Amino acid sequence: MRDAYLIGAGQSAYGSFPGESYRSLFETAFERAVDSVPEGVEPGDVDEAVVGTLGVGGRQLGLSGPAVTEHVGLGGVPTTRVENACAASGYAVRQAIQAVKSGMADVVLAGGFEIMTDTSSDATKYWLGVSGETEWERLSGTTFSGVYAQMASAHMDAHGTTREQLSRVAVKNHANGAKNPHAQLAFECSLEDAQSAPVVADPLNLYHCCPTSDGAACALIASEDVVGKYTDDPIRVAGVGAGSDSVGLFQRDTYTGIPASRRAAETAYEMAGVGPEDLDFAEVHDCFAIAELLAYEDLGFCDPGEAGDLIESGRTEIDGDLPVNTSGGLKSKGHPIGATGAGQVVEAFKQLSGKAGDRQLDDPVRGLTHNVGGSGGAAVVHVFEREERSSSERSSGRSPRESESGVAR
Amino acid sequence: MRDAYLIGAGQSAYGSFPGESYRSLFETAFERAVDSVPEGVEPGDVDEAVVGTLGVGGRQLGLSGPAVTEHVGLGGVPTTRVENACAASGYAVRQAIQAVKSGMADVVLAGGFEIMTDTSSDATKYWLGVSGETEWERLSGTTFSGVYAQMASAHMDAHGTTREQLSRVAVKNHANGAKNPHAQLAFECSLEDAQSAPVVADPLNLYHCCPTSDGAACALIASEDVVGKYTDDPIRVAGVGAGSDSVGLFQRDTYTGIPASRRAAETAYEMAGVGPEDLDFAEVHDCFAIAELLAYEDLGFCDPGEAGDLIESGRTEIDGDLPVNTSGGLKSKGHPIGATGAGQVVEAFKQLSGKAGDRQLDDPVRGLTHNVGGSGGAAVVHVFEREERSSSERSSGRSPRESESGVAR
Repeated sequence: MRDAYLIGAGQSAYGSFPGESYRSLFETAFERAVDSVPEGVEPGDVDEAVVGTLGVGGRQLGLSGPAVTEHVGLGGVPTTRVENACAASGYAVRQAIQAVKSGMADVVLAGGFEIMTDTSSDATKYWLGVSGETEWERLSGTTFSGVYAQMASAHMDAHGTTREQLSRVAVKNHANGAKNPHAQLAFECSLEDAQSAPVVADPLNLYHCCPTSDGAACALIASEDVVGKYTDDPIRVAGVGAGSDSVGLFQRDTYTGIPASRRAAETAYEMAGVGPEDLDFAEVHDCFAIAELLAYEDLGFCDPGEAGDLIESGRTEIDGDLPVNTSGGLKSKGHPIGATGAGQVVEAFKQLSGKAGDRQLDDPVRGLTHNVGGSGGAAVVHVFEREERSSSERSSGRSPRESESGVAR
Repeated sequence: MRDAYLIGAGQSAYGSFPGESYRSLFETAFERAVDSVPEGVEPGDVDEAVVGTLGVGGRQLGLSGPAVTEHVGLGGVPTTRVENACAASGYAVRQAIQAVKSGMADVVLAGGFEIMTDTSSDATKYWLGVSGETEWERLSGTTFSGVYAQMASAHMDAHGTTREQLSRVAVKNHANGAKNPHAQLAFECSLEDAQSAPVVADPLNLYHCCPTSDGAACALIASEDVVGKYTDDPIRVAGVGAGSDSVGLFQRDTYTGIPASRRAAETAYEMAGVGPEDLDFAEVHDCFAIAELLAYEDLGFCDPGEAGDLIESGRTEIDGDLPVNTSGGLKSKGHPIGATGAGQVVEAFKQLSGKAGDRQLDDPVRGLTHNVGGSGGAAVVHVFEREERSSSERSSGRSPRESESGVAR
């Protein structure tokens, strides 16, 4: 099994862009990914592409993968569209890694996109609902926020988790997102703001829910055989894990955790030979505030039931010992469904290559990304690791805090 | 790059099944695939699953992959849904092969499904249209049969291809499908029938178009490290190739061929170290009669412009030297979009393992499958090869013409 490396990654801004199309946003993300490769990469070097999207709005439901790769100059390249609801491009990254490890490709583009803000609120409800179970969730009237509200209620009931702890997720992620020029909701919020927002699906209020977003993100994965051509600071894909589950929350044994996340994390940690204690940061799937707390437990950042305490402790803040969602997360950076998984990898790339601007961590070596489809029908986890250079290499290396390029969209 | 093997494959009948669901049809296909593995396989052996579907009708647009794998007892297994229009499960098979070659999985399920017959004709037109380009094909009123009609007209104009030659594709494929207990239109048709059918999109008439279908198909791919546990007659994945292109026909340089098919075939032949002259049979994507003729040329069965002569020569009939679509093809077996690519692999498995019943070829060694998405935005080609056993092994081997199991749905 040959090693795979993350050699570049980039994203469009996330937000509402009525003047853009899915093709133009994908192009921006692709160009930034290409530009981020230290030694450069030619489009002709890309052997294959995997593109994740849910297809919200239904504008190009079939073959949207080839539609975007052709647009960015990769016409002819084998292109697969994958969809696992909100984990679409997390799985695209995983498939790109498999393509590289298989020996069938040396450089693979993994990306994703979504346009969500041009649909009516009814249409948005429909498209979010398709990530839940159709007959007994969507068609029976359960909204997607309603599904996560049930998980929040169950966690509060079982473990004494509080609304204030949910709100602290929003406060932390907005504080980080305010430092991210590509974030959709790039402003800070106070605990009071987060506590007093209108209810969306009790106990979740507006600040406990991520926005709907337009956006695209891309990552470039290369094999160990060619990585030296593209970078002197290789970021290795140390671990990959995925898991699936019943699509409907009501079909599962537990409401206070996401078993697919646990399976994905176990596999990824085992492959990487590390545990949660070895991580320097993590980007986790906080589509709702409760989802970040569940992730803390499912990914082993704390014991079951202790996520409320962990967020309160400040340890997952940007200056804590395990910063979570330095990008702002889905809550503040935004959640263009098909782009989200690849977008998390963009943040991992930026942190590990010292290009995270005002939110740069101090020389991180290892980070995790965690992407969930639906309410947990699918999950995928990656562990990325900056390879240790020798001290002589290190002394001549890059500045640890380069500024972030490509601010405006 | 370790080798991958096809150890089993099965499909539901294709047809109109108002009493079935996408889950129940997938279950039938999965069980038949499992039952087809010579030494048996336990669901617990399956490390991963890839499921192709376009999602016609929109009943479970998100996470339909995990929805079916959980239903067949694979709950928890990493499951990815892929969609490349009508090539969805051809790409699922390709991804399963990559997963095995990557070393991340030893046994991978690749399958697909579609339910199409419960939608209105307007809805069907919409869902077929999504495989074309949205703005300048579907929304401007071009139907999917209209797109292929343009290709047929161009081929007739450039090469003198005739309506009768198109009709001969139908006659041949119906003759084969009449011998396939899983075929939707399992009856023979005369050249006169095929010539006198009502026009759908000139020059294509009803017999030049495949039906809309419900159905599912599954294939099991295993690594060289474990294949010996499952079979003494291994079928190797000798070649894999894929290509993409502009989604809209109007965006391409040629109407008389599908460049993505050519790219896919070139890659697959090169990897397999064989050419079209080394094939014993092929399953090609005959969604419309013209598509089979284009495939003859794109796959190198004849020179450009000579496909009409090739169908007339009888060489691609079941008793010819290169039988094409012994299953009946999409025309007679049916075309449940997401199932089609995996269904072609089912026929390859049956032919190579001597289980093709009344349509069994005489001891074939090597076969090709060819699956196209849309009008050629994506294509994928596989070459499967029965490994030569020693003569002592061969003398004690299976009967070359075992009867086909599982006739009824």
